[in-house]
Amino acid sequence: MSDQPNDQLAENEDRKGRLAKLFATDILPQSNNWEDTETFLGEVVKVLLKYICEENQRETKILEFHHPTEMKKIIDLTIPDEPQPLEELVKACEQVLSLGVRTGHPRFFNQISCGLDLVSMAGEWLTATANTNMFTYEIAPVYILMEKEVLRKMWEAIGWDPEKSDGIFAPGGAIANLYAMNTARHHMFPRSKHLGNGEIPILCCFTSQDCHYSIKSAASVTGIGSDHCFYIKTDSGGRMIPEALEQQIIRCKNEGMQPFFVCATAGTTVYGAWDPIEKIADICERYRIWLHVDAAWGGGLLLSPEHRYKLSGIERAQSVTWNPHKLMGAILQCSACLFRQDGLLFQCNQMSADYLFQQDKPYDVNYDTGDKAIQCGRHNDTFKLWLMWKSKGMEGYRKQINYLMDLAAYFSERLRATDGYELVVDPPEFLNICFWYIPQKMRGLDLAEKMARLEKIAPKIKAKMMERGTTMVGYQPDKKRPNFFRMIISNQAITRADLDFLIDEIVDIGESLYETM
Amino acid sequence: MSDQPNDQLAENEDRKGRLAKLFATDILPQSNNWEDTETFLGEVVKVLLKYICEENQRETKILEFHHPTEMKKIIDLTIPDEPQPLEELVKACEQVLSLGVRTGHPRFFNQISCGLDLVSMAGEWLTATANTNMFTYEIAPVYILMEKEVLRKMWEAIGWDPEKSDGIFAPGGAIANLYAMNTARHHMFPRSKHLGNGEIPILCCFTSQDCHYSIKSAASVTGIGSDHCFYIKTDSGGRMIPEALEQQIIRCKNEGMQPFFVCATAGTTVYGAWDPIEKIADICERYRIWLHVDAAWGGGLLLSPEHRYKLSGIERAQSVTWNPHKLMGAILQCSACLFRQDGLLFQCNQMSADYLFQQDKPYDVNYDTGDKAIQCGRHNDTFKLWLMWKSKGMEGYRKQINYLMDLAAYFSERLRATDGYELVVDPPEFLNICFWYIPQKMRGLDLAEKMARLEKIAPKIKAKMMERGTTMVGYQPDKKRPNFFRMIISNQAITRADLDFLIDEIVDIGESLYETM
Repeated sequence: MSDQPNDQLAENEDRKGRLAKLFATDILPQSNNWEDTETFLGEVVKVLLKYICEENQRETKILEFHHPTEMKKIIDLTIPDEPQPLEELVKACEQVLSLGVRTGHPRFFNQISCGLDLVSMAGEWLTATANTNMFTYEIAPVYILMEKEVLRKMWEAIGWDPEKSDGIFAPGGAIANLYAMNTARHHMFPRSKHLGNGEIPILCCFTSQDCHYSIKSAASVTGIGSDHCFYIKTDSGGRMIPEALEQQIIRCKNEGMQPFFVCATAGTTVYGAWDPIEKIADICERYRIWLHVDAAWGGGLLLSPEHRYKLSGIERAQSVTWNPHKLMGAILQCSACLFRQDGLLFQCNQMSADYLFQQDKPYDVNYDTGDKAIQCGRHNDTFKLWLMWKSKGMEGYRKQINYLMDLAAYFSERLRATDGYELVVDPPEFLNICFWYIPQKMRGLDLAEKMARLEKIAPKIKAKMMERGTTMVGYQPDKKRPNFFRMIISNQAITRADLDFLIDEIVDIGESLYETM
Repeated sequence: MSDQPNDQLAENEDRKGRLAKLFATDILPQSNNWEDTETFLGEVVKVLLKYICEENQRETKILEFHHPTEMKKIIDLTIPDEPQPLEELVKACEQVLSLGVRTGHPRFFNQISCGLDLVSMAGEWLTATANTNMFTYEIAPVYILMEKEVLRKMWEAIGWDPEKSDGIFAPGGAIANLYAMNTARHHMFPRSKHLGNGEIPILCCFTSQDCHYSIKSAASVTGIGSDHCFYIKTDSGGRMIPEALEQQIIRCKNEGMQPFFVCATAGTTVYGAWDPIEKIADICERYRIWLHVDAAWGGGLLLSPEHRYKLSGIERAQSVTWNPHKLMGAILQCSACLFRQDGLLFQCNQMSADYLFQQDKPYDVNYDTGDKAIQCGRHNDTFKLWLMWKSKGMEGYRKQINYLMDLAAYFSERLRATDGYELVVDPPEFLNICFWYIPQKMRGLDLAEKMARLEKIAPKIKAKMMERGTTMVGYQPDKKRPNFFRMIISNQAITRADLDFLIDEIVDIGESLYETM
């Protein structure tokens, strides 16, 4: 140990300098060299901390936009023949981060999953370090029990009996939806598992026209066929019309198909709309159809006693998809597929792999989860959620979610009060706020002309926004409307001032662009 | 800044002490408080570094085994109503790690995925910090290009033209195999995507009886039916018998089924056997069947010019599953599904989600990968692989893989030379070494009696091993043989002394246990 801070600084610099001549083979686990191992990891952590600190400063640019061809010139992504020194790796980390998009920046409103919860991040760092697989209690004892605890909280939030429920963490909402559809098929026609769709009636399923595309995708993957996934009309707010659902079910039955699965969306991707679950559940009960609720985005609202009424009836569903990496802010990926009835997942997916799921182990093998998954190896998506949830408690989530809902109300109010802004759906029902900005000179145009021009405005504003790098928000058209912006308020770091900033920035870009259009 | 190191120590302790009273809402991103944020993350990193350091010391126990009911008493996994202080979270990290299984310990031989490559781990830490999604260039510009570069290296290793190939990282080998089967179906019957299996002939597929169970699972999920997945006999070394494959194909055709998919396994889960790809490819070409190679485990051998001959013919496959989280040592999960023909993945999976994959973006949208995935959100599994690959270079991998193959040869030789050990398959062809240990007093018994007793020995030895916590190796029976150990040599940290240790430990446990049996 040195006596003087200056000596220590010099020693640190010296250690760091050594990384220029060291390689991966010179540190653990290949060389028993703790000092350099620690220095290397310490330097990487410094890079990450610096990034986190900067990302949270609002003056930091969200991105430096480069076209793919430019980007390839800026950064050398090739895999070399020879090993690269550790110092090069640290520099690569720095460069990669500097060229990325700061999705945790408080003014990044572009995706449903955004923000960077640091407790969850710390959890994911630990997960990488523990580096284990979720298939057996044998190699993931704590995480297997933890998964059950976290699922229990989710079952309770839905309103199910935790003693009778089941569930699994899946790699993303689309795979979770696939799990649900596959299980629903198995429930109605268990023989399909072994004999395939050829031995059962032609199945068909139903979802709103504003649903997530993964429902159609699941129908395609499961061999049901995307054409047998029927899109049901929505009302002007983007909610499934139950009468239209029932008519379609009857039509399908008359045509000889077997309706087996209805998906109600709780928080649609674009409008954040809530399908009327109670009414849909009535119809499902009447026709004995499996009800799935895709609450990938909206599920988090169950944690707010004030707002959970929007999902009324969700407890009547047979299965629910709920992605904690969305509203709850967990690090990507963290998605759960939940089932009201225990046992189905296992019956549907077990393939009895003796080499993995032996029955003569020294512990209760009912804890092994591997045989109820479609996957074999399964990433531990539980720990980052568990740690974050512990950090907030039920009470913390309630506050956080209510805060975001309040921000959304504030933002809508500001849009209504600001010239040039028009809400696509008013009032917005969730944290998606869809709107147009109409530059001043366009406001007097007739409707057809305005619509035609509007289509091009959002992409141009967005492109300019990415160039400036100050903020980011997505846009899209729908079947009837020209391109509009979709604002997402799901990052707990957002303040009212950030929302004001976005409003001013779009006006500024929109007005300056219009001159050239 | 303090002048004296002692002052600084005191200041650090003071900072640390504050964590007892601080909550997640007191640090970034909710409070602009960098100092405490840094302290919290610093404390978590300390816990992780300590774990890494200990895990690499051979005297550290691999696990402290507790039955599920005991474990629930030791650690409080419940989610509280109130937020927990940051200090509690740091302690929770420590406790969770202490109760886990040290899968990176040099004497953990239990899984095909084991070891802890610290460069890959650092990569995964960065991935968590960057926390972005792989669907569009817009939000993952560097990682999207990087994925292509890494895939390019994999295509080249297989022997495909990188300009014409395609691929995607998938969450685990089972999902990668599902991607392959789904794409193969689409290739033969594109109408199945929209119309389902009802409108096409009854499909059937083929794989060896020693394959990974995910092939049957994929047949079940895709609605083909697990009974239409035919297991082909293997020879005494666990390799598919090509003549048996051809006979089964003919039988299926005669029964009116449509053979569409053959899976050859490159490195089976239990024996590490290599199906004869060239001969299987001949048959596939003759009958116009899609050839998939499941090289989830064996794929890494392509990086060794000395050993890659074991996968001869792999370049004739239409698709390949290759998991870098296995032999290449990437952090879980990292699996690729690779395709010889570009475009199929996209045609098969695209569902045209306008709200995500707009065509009027300011860059070349061909770089957006989202529409070729079954998943929507997709975890970034590229960076940890890229950084690790850079750290080793092609040359480093060659050495590492050859080193492991040499260790396996050494281990087999030692088993042959040690009384009581018997190889199940001799010689082993890969890094799986399957063996029995026959305690001294049993060696004179007749075969039937010996077999009956052998069935119980491996589980008992394994249970004792877990109690001692000194080492870990898996076991399983097969259809003809009683329980045997399956040794896996895939951790780059393993030395000859570790292998000697295992051999001695099993003798020691086996002999002491036999007294009581």
